[in-house]
Amino acid sequence: MATVNMVEYDAAIPAVRQVYDDIMTTRKTDWINNFWKALAVQPELLQRTWHDVKSVMAPGVLDPLTKEMIYIAVSVTNGCRYCINSHTAAARTKGMTDEMLSELMAVVGMANHTNALADGFQVKVDEAFQHGGREP
Amino acid sequence: MATVNMVEYDAAIPAVRQVYDDIMTTRKTDWINNFWKALAVQPELLQRTWHDVKSVMAPGVLDPLTKEMIYIAVSVTNGCRYCINSHTAAARTKGMTDEMLSELMAVVGMANHTNALADGFQVKVDEAFQHGGREP
Amino acid sequence: MATVNMVEYDAAIPAVRQVYDDIMTTRKTDWINNFWKALAVQPELLQRTWHDVKSVMAPGVLDPLTKEMIYIAVSVTNGCRYCINSHTAAARTKGMTDEMLSELMAVVGMANHTNALADGFQVKVDEAFQHGGREP
Amino acid sequence: MATVNMVEYDAAIPAVRQVYDDIMTTRKTDWINNFWKALAVQPELLQRTWHDVKSVMAPGVLDPLTKEMIYIAVSVTNGCRYCINSHTAAARTKGMTDEMLSELMAVVGMANHTNALADGFQVKVDEAFQHGGREP
Amino acid sequence: MATVNMVEYDAAIPAVRQVYDDIMTTRKTDWINNFWKALAVQPELLQRTWHDVKSVMAPGVLDPLTKEMIYIAVSVTNGCRYCINSHTAAARTKGMTDEMLSELMAVVGMANHTNALADGFQVKVDEAFQHGGREP
Amino acid sequence: MATVNMVEYDAAIPAVRQVYDDIMTTRKTDWINNFWKALAVQPELLQRTWHDVKSVMAPGVLDPLTKEMIYIAVSVTNGCRYCINSHTAAARTKGMTDEMLSELMAVVGMANHTNALADGFQVKVDEAFQHGGREP
Repeated sequence: MATVNMVEYDAAIPAVRQVYDDIMTTRKTDWINNFWKALAVQPELLQRTWHDVKSVMAPGVLDPLTKEMIYIAVSVTNGCRYCINSHTAAARTKGMTDEMLSELMAVVGMANHTNALADGFQVKVDEAFQHGGREP
Repeated sequence: MATVNMVEYDAAIPAVRQVYDDIMTTRKTDWINNFWKALAVQPELLQRTWHDVKSVMAPGVLDPLTKEMIYIAVSVTNGCRYCINSHTAAARTKGMTDEMLSELMAVVGMANHTNALADGFQVKVDEAFQHGGREP
Repeated sequence: MATVNMVEYDAAIPAVRQVYDDIMTTRKTDWINNFWKALAVQPELLQRTWHDVKSVMAPGVLDPLTKEMIYIAVSVTNGCRYCINSHTAAARTKGMTDEMLSELMAVVGMANHTNALADGFQVKVDEAFQHGGREP
Repeated sequence: MATVNMVEYDAAIPAVRQVYDDIMTTRKTDWINNFWKALAVQPELLQRTWHDVKSVMAPGVLDPLTKEMIYIAVSVTNGCRYCINSHTAAARTKGMTDEMLSELMAVVGMANHTNALADGFQVKVDEAFQHGGREP
Repeated sequence: MATVNMVEYDAAIPAVRQVYDDIMTTRKTDWINNFWKALAVQPELLQRTWHDVKSVMAPGVLDPLTKEMIYIAVSVTNGCRYCINSHTAAARTKGMTDEMLSELMAVVGMANHTNALADGFQVKVDEAFQHGGREP
Repeated sequence: MATVNMVEYDAAIPAVRQVYDDIMTTRKTDWINNFWKALAVQPELLQRTWHDVKSVMAPGVLDPLTKEMIYIAVSVTNGCRYCINSHTAAARTKGMTDEMLSELMAVVGMANHTNALADGFQVKVDEAFQHGGREP
């Protein structure tokens, strides 16, 4: 169904296999999901994207599960079917329960709702909210 | 600038004042931001929206700061200027540092990036990711 | 602020003036709003766009005010500041009251809300809803 | 396919059944579509969402069919497959003909078109369109 | 699956057949893809849309392949499954290689990424970038 | 206006200055636009983003001006004000004329238009368009 031929491990050139190996090691798994097999059509694209995703999703001041939920929030807002499915699975692996998923969706739904209201009424940004400060 | 006349506290009917009072009590503040003043053009819309936001953003299995960051992730993806500004301020009030904001944006940026790649190559959802289960 | 120089009536070539005249006649007004002045940088773009807008927004099986409200619903969902402002003004000219605007926004907000929930949970389309038929 | 287990009537707790019953009574039907079965994973989410949808979509200053068409306009702009299918079916039940659907789509298509042009050229909002007034 | 009945050539009225014939002549092909068969439910919608697409996609100061890639960039950003598939096929017909598709996707991914960062941090437009001029 | 304090060259740490220097060298200019000054709040975010943008926008099988126009197409579809302004300026520096900008916008407008129609009618992807092949 993809618009490019997906590259399987056995047919991959060394530069691609190296990324696949790193994905499997990092994720402690023995398979590669379709997303990476599609990017592999262009090894540089695969390398850069994996390098960035690995770096961004690593534990930082935000924990990995929080990051996955933020990823889902964006993917839902964009309606990206592949990403919603893959990151929901990833979040579940990291401990997201049905109750957490429901609260996540409640916030995502409400945010999309009030985004529309704020844009629809063209509400002016309060002076107090500008410049990135705290609420008064 | 708004497309409706904003309703100030002093000019508000009792049903609107009651919501304004609840907003100020809940948020431990003494002012009302423009969003609510615009919704007040229709008291029922104000009541329902505030009731829902209050309920959804209350502490649950997800903590209030995590919910604010999810709200920001959606607002950024939609490009909603008002909501980005107001919820960044709200998140800062709840403890978000510059470092947390930067990590949040890094995840939001990367999610929008890979959403485009997954859609662009029309990557097929792996069987393993369907049905909401964990990663294999 | 626009990324092209806007074309004023007095400086316009005949092909552009002809469109401007038709806009003013159709709308029973004596001024041209900035949108058309920006398109006029390329007369063919101006002609085609005006021709299409005029044709699509004319009375049909849907009345002009309903069409304006649908236009607003799209513009709000896209967060298009110019279009929200211009079509809200157009809808008011055609009779939209504050109460109608509020109901419109309530529907637009709720639709954006449930769109997110349906995508977020990846709800499968019921067999009964497919093929464009009525509800069972 | 959904990322949560859908809750069927027979397996539902009383709080969920009560909502299902109200949906069927309100809609004069004897079945529940998948959307609600997915939300039921969290009864409070189901209750709040149904309560809001019921209230927002009820007859007001805008009639129910106009509201359904506005719902479709948003869903199309977001590309929400589930919502496009379910609300097109709902609109047909309420009397939308092929001709009305075509006019609706013509407006939705044109609005998405001119939204892009207005944003693309960064057209400045005319002074006359600000503050929510009528056209001059 | 479509929400309207698609109109096949043999069942089409003359006005529709005329458009179908022009599509086949223009594209040097002997079949009509589903998009046009769906629009044909309303002959005027079919005529206007085809007329516009034909005119916009014709060679101009931008060549047809560049135009197809721009079309894909928009369709990916909107997540429009039909359009991504049909315009990727059209671009391949016009000479787009896997390598070009990969570079296109790399730009589209990065643009969606930095769009989010610019909106997320609410970066102010530099004076030098306004008014549509060149970079300083 | 930004939600973080922008980092000016003189106040920047060496790691940030190094990126700023590379930006100015690469672009043959002597100033840094606000986007990078906002990212600099987190040097790693600045480094990774600049590295990726530099790499993606470099000449490849697609020329730099084509890449800029694709960037604009995405930014317009997302309605990202900052990015529309900055990349329109960048494209003009690389040779984009008013006529090219108008054709670009005509394609972007039409793509957003037909995306809506294809989604709105839920048009089924033709078998011939799947799998990323050419048109039949």
